[in-house]
Amino acid sequence: MPELGFSHATEVRVRFAETDAQGIAHNAAYLVWYEVARVDYLARFAGGYNRIRELGLEALTTETHVRYLGAVRFDDRLRLHVRCGDLRGARFRFDYVVERPADGTTIADGWTSHATVDATTLRPIRLPAWLAEAIPRAAASPPS
Amino acid sequence: MPELGFSHATEVRVRFAETDAQGIAHNAAYLVWYEVARVDYLARFAGGYNRIRELGLEALTTETHVRYLGAVRFDDRLRLHVRCGDLRGARFRFDYVVERPADGTTIADGWTSHATVDATTLRPIRLPAWLAEAIPRAAASPPS
Amino acid sequence: MPELGFSHATEVRVRFAETDAQGIAHNAAYLVWYEVARVDYLARFAGGYNRIRELGLEALTTETHVRYLGAVRFDDRLRLHVRCGDLRGARFRFDYVVERPADGTTIADGWTSHATVDATTLRPIRLPAWLAEAIPRAAASPPS
Amino acid sequence: MPELGFSHATEVRVRFAETDAQGIAHNAAYLVWYEVARVDYLARFAGGYNRIRELGLEALTTETHVRYLGAVRFDDRLRLHVRCGDLRGARFRFDYVVERPADGTTIADGWTSHATVDATTLRPIRLPAWLAEAIPRAAASPPS
Repeated sequence: MPELGFSHATEVRVRFAETDAQGIAHNAAYLVWYEVARVDYLARFAGGYNRIRELGLEALTTETHVRYLGAVRFDDRLRLHVRCGDLRGARFRFDYVVERPADGTTIADGWTSHATVDATTLRPIRLPAWLAEAIPRAAASPPS
Repeated sequence: MPELGFSHATEVRVRFAETDAQGIAHNAAYLVWYEVARVDYLARFAGGYNRIRELGLEALTTETHVRYLGAVRFDDRLRLHVRCGDLRGARFRFDYVVERPADGTTIADGWTSHATVDATTLRPIRLPAWLAEAIPRAAASPPS
Repeated sequence: MPELGFSHATEVRVRFAETDAQGIAHNAAYLVWYEVARVDYLARFAGGYNRIRELGLEALTTETHVRYLGAVRFDDRLRLHVRCGDLRGARFRFDYVVERPADGTTIADGWTSHATVDATTLRPIRLPAWLAEAIPRAAASPPS
Repeated sequence: MPELGFSHATEVRVRFAETDAQGIAHNAAYLVWYEVARVDYLARFAGGYNRIRELGLEALTTETHVRYLGAVRFDDRLRLHVRCGDLRGARFRFDYVVERPADGTTIADGWTSHATVDATTLRPIRLPAWLAEAIPRAAASPPS
């Protein structure tokens, strides 16, 4: 890390509420962290998710995939490396690698797919140009 | 149980995702269960929460209180006894008693306060008459 | 539906707490529902997840995949069709199809992979024979 | 703010997953934020919650109370002012005031009660001396 093309990183700490009776973070928490990383990415490179929403668009999640590579415990500090790409019409995709800096291990990876839709009708709408342009710019920028 | 005036009961099972690393249900899960019980109550006595929303109203939560009286574990079946009352203008209140039928213990109780507001402006709006009337009717009905 | 080999179905209702500001169920909620369906499946065919835990085992989630095929709203009743298979040593896999009976649409599908581990060391342990045997039995039983 | 005796503040941003179909943060999210603030407080003044757990203790939550004073939206930055006190045997209490720095409004307040218990038996155990001593020290320190 920084892995090739991962231009952005977001940190989270595992909340106690995110653990389960196995003593580790619950599998659904990773999707929430991925979202936190996406929001942070969009804030840095594209004026923020709220800018998308102000245009009357929503970015729906159409697919999620997580590989859990190591157990994560309460209060662990995690670094989420994120990149966005694969833009096609209304669709785009984020990739994630989750690292625990304390021991340098990769504890998860995955990807999510999204589609921009009209917030009222939920019908697909082509990604706004400014967002479509912001994403390759982000990919080319030096890692944070 | 049935406790005086508790005219309705809803059952939930503790989900694994609702437990935490203490091996018991997380304290925030109780507020979600209280909500499940409220929704169920409104469905039975007042045409459902969606009917409130279709009128352009929202029922905001203005106060919550939970007493945790016993630990609750994964897969425990819980019975939530609920009653509604104390209507004043835009305000109303729900009371809850949570019982674990397997051993008959009361494992929590509490109450939540709510206000009906205009869904757009979020300004208080007097409780619709049909809802204000449904609630005493519910309180007088035999326990479910 | 019932789809070939989906021997079990579990119902959930979308909780208000599971919706987000897009007005639809949040993407992470699906992983919680998949877990509810797994727990229900294991209860029916294999003595329950608690039986696994009593043996000093845990079933870790090693991979999750969800495709979101249609928006799901508050109070929607969902039927989760689930099957288990692909047993190899310590590993097994669940497949899911989520249907909304009210309109017969498939609103999601996906799969999750799991590994049985020692609850203390978190090292992989071959699936107990009774569980390995329960699963093909389930697959052969008529749909519920 | 800083309010009298509130010696510590923690910041959170409202996650999209924490919003609901009312377009505002769900009432149960506040209990999770209160916990984040407690964990942060204990880390600063008392060696951290994990130190309590390493002693074979757990701090159970015995009561929670939240007043919701204003709607909170996705991506809002919140400052949680927290203080701890009212130590009696195994029991202690946290108070919270939640402020939105962007407009200086107080958007919630509340308190939670806790009891230290033996992690295995869940029986009450007097608060360890180092923790009982750390808390008044914290209360006397200048606000962060």
